[in-house]
Amino acid sequence: MPAANPQRQDHSTSSVRTATEISQDGAFKRQLNRFVTRFGDEEGELPIEAGRYRLIWSAACPWAHRSVIVRRVLGLEETISLGTVSPLRPRLTRVDWEFSLNEGGVDPVLGIRYLSEIYLHTDPDYTGRPTVPVVVDVKEGRAVNNDYFRLTNDLETVWLPFHGEQSPDLYPAHLRNEIDTLNDTIYHDVNNGVYKCGFARSQEAYEDAYGVLFARLDELEERLSTRRFLFGDFITDSDVRLYTTLVRFDAAYYTAFKTNRNLIREFRHLSGYVRDLYQTPGFGDTTDFDAIKRHYHLSITIDTDKPEVSILPKGPDLSFWDLPHDREKLSTRPDKFLRRL
Amino acid sequence: MPAANPQRQDHSTSSVRTATEISQDGAFKRQLNRFVTRFGDEEGELPIEAGRYRLIWSAACPWAHRSVIVRRVLGLEETISLGTVSPLRPRLTRVDWEFSLNEGGVDPVLGIRYLSEIYLHTDPDYTGRPTVPVVVDVKEGRAVNNDYFRLTNDLETVWLPFHGEQSPDLYPAHLRNEIDTLNDTIYHDVNNGVYKCGFARSQEAYEDAYGVLFARLDELEERLSTRRFLFGDFITDSDVRLYTTLVRFDAAYYTAFKTNRNLIREFRHLSGYVRDLYQTPGFGDTTDFDAIKRHYHLSITIDTDKPEVSILPKGPDLSFWDLPHDREKLSTRPDKFLRRL
Repeated sequence: MPAANPQRQDHSTSSVRTATEISQDGAFKRQLNRFVTRFGDEEGELPIEAGRYRLIWSAACPWAHRSVIVRRVLGLEETISLGTVSPLRPRLTRVDWEFSLNEGGVDPVLGIRYLSEIYLHTDPDYTGRPTVPVVVDVKEGRAVNNDYFRLTNDLETVWLPFHGEQSPDLYPAHLRNEIDTLNDTIYHDVNNGVYKCGFARSQEAYEDAYGVLFARLDELEERLSTRRFLFGDFITDSDVRLYTTLVRFDAAYYTAFKTNRNLIREFRHLSGYVRDLYQTPGFGDTTDFDAIKRHYHLSITIDTDKPEVSILPKGPDLSFWDLPHDREKLSTRPDKFLRRL
Repeated sequence: MPAANPQRQDHSTSSVRTATEISQDGAFKRQLNRFVTRFGDEEGELPIEAGRYRLIWSAACPWAHRSVIVRRVLGLEETISLGTVSPLRPRLTRVDWEFSLNEGGVDPVLGIRYLSEIYLHTDPDYTGRPTVPVVVDVKEGRAVNNDYFRLTNDLETVWLPFHGEQSPDLYPAHLRNEIDTLNDTIYHDVNNGVYKCGFARSQEAYEDAYGVLFARLDELEERLSTRRFLFGDFITDSDVRLYTTLVRFDAAYYTAFKTNRNLIREFRHLSGYVRDLYQTPGFGDTTDFDAIKRHYHLSITIDTDKPEVSILPKGPDLSFWDLPHDREKLSTRPDKFLRRL
């Protein structure tokens, strides 16, 4: 059962118009994804094969971070390779991502300097922002999937034959409908909600997004007052999605996106919840606060004509992340993950 | 005994050079004050006289706010009138303050639209930023004092004949040396310290200022763990000066000036201390969060060529200010003020 995708796109649209992602009322409307073919063994789907694909991410990006967490938690690191673009946007007249962290400024597998190269090589008519995550078919030299919304679900299901031993089930069959429904809410109100605050170009659009965001965070705070994770005793795909926004919140969104009613560390339950996840293998060890801060404070933009900012905020104090979280008491199970039988 | 003034200026300097207040290493160096003649009954001092002077402030400005707090606490409101400029800088090729809150955009007593008018009328060679607070001699139509550093001390001492009944002593003779010393520290590290963070134009200058600021806040936090106010059981001039920065911190400096190690409301003792002051007549009732937010987030600049920002952050949650502070237990006195005998 495929997850519903709120970013679903008509395949007949050969190129995506993103000259601006700001609507007339000043609200931010995220562009649609271009490459949305699913992985699977059906006709027209992307065949699963070890060593064939390369996942490109930026450590700054929450949409890419979710697939990197799932890749690690499921033991897919040997199966799907990882390429990393810099958190700092290159200084160009277009919005792009750059492989400047690599020797020579070039991805060692793809041999490209800018992410746009693989987008344009795959679709010469592509006019949107090149985005991460994007899965590249190394054999064909083509971008095949940048559908961040459903990519983790594919990794959790059809990629099962390559999961590591004892890898958990992040998307249990009996919970999929509920997970999909919650993911949809988290996407609109929280994951993309912070961007709607930060990229709004009218006071009203900003305040609307702010109201929705904090109402949802208050609701999640309440939900997490009695459950260790969103669906109870074990971590699911929904926790991965909520984590990637919460972990960036105090260091980035609170200031850079004006989501400043409260810090996450001021919520009693969300504060412990996000630390509990941070202290779980696959989460904290894929979280790079320096990259996050540099991206959101120095380089975040959807406009190429925005002025450059030059001072990186020194805070917040990161000692928070290693503090005890005291969340074990909400669970009766010794393991945070649901293992397959 | 006059208080030492770290902004002391050689009177032979007829005009102050402020084409830029950024030094070569990127650090912010605040301009000197132009009009520093003290009030008093000595030859060459400004004579004290009810109804003669008008204090001009902006509710956004911490330097002006301190004199407005002291004016109210000491019952000088009928003696010295108050004019108010908008927290939003006018859109001009120079930095100025504007009387746009008044009917017709003109101060009803001085008849001027921009603060620069009184500065230039008084000193045609004045080239600095026109600043608040500034005391205007209404009889002479001249700016006579913009020495925010010593103005409160003058109000507390030589203006004594006009203090209201039962007005407190904010600057007790036996503590003046200690108060002056602490004020000097608070000025450099905290009051101006936040500006050094916000206006730094190099990463190193910013981080230096940030380090000094939070080291000092940690020290003040410790000092206030055992004393209700900086000098014990009663409020002094030093508390007024610390208050005006602390009350703006979470709503403005934390984000706009990148002073983001911690919010003030996250400090156990500073948090209660600043609320205790806020809930004291003269403090909270002269604090205008809307003006503070609009100034620092929409209009703060020392450069006239900085781009305009258009979205006002909605947070933080202001319900904090009315919460109980539980600071009474640190004091044995029923009154927060030292009354004269």
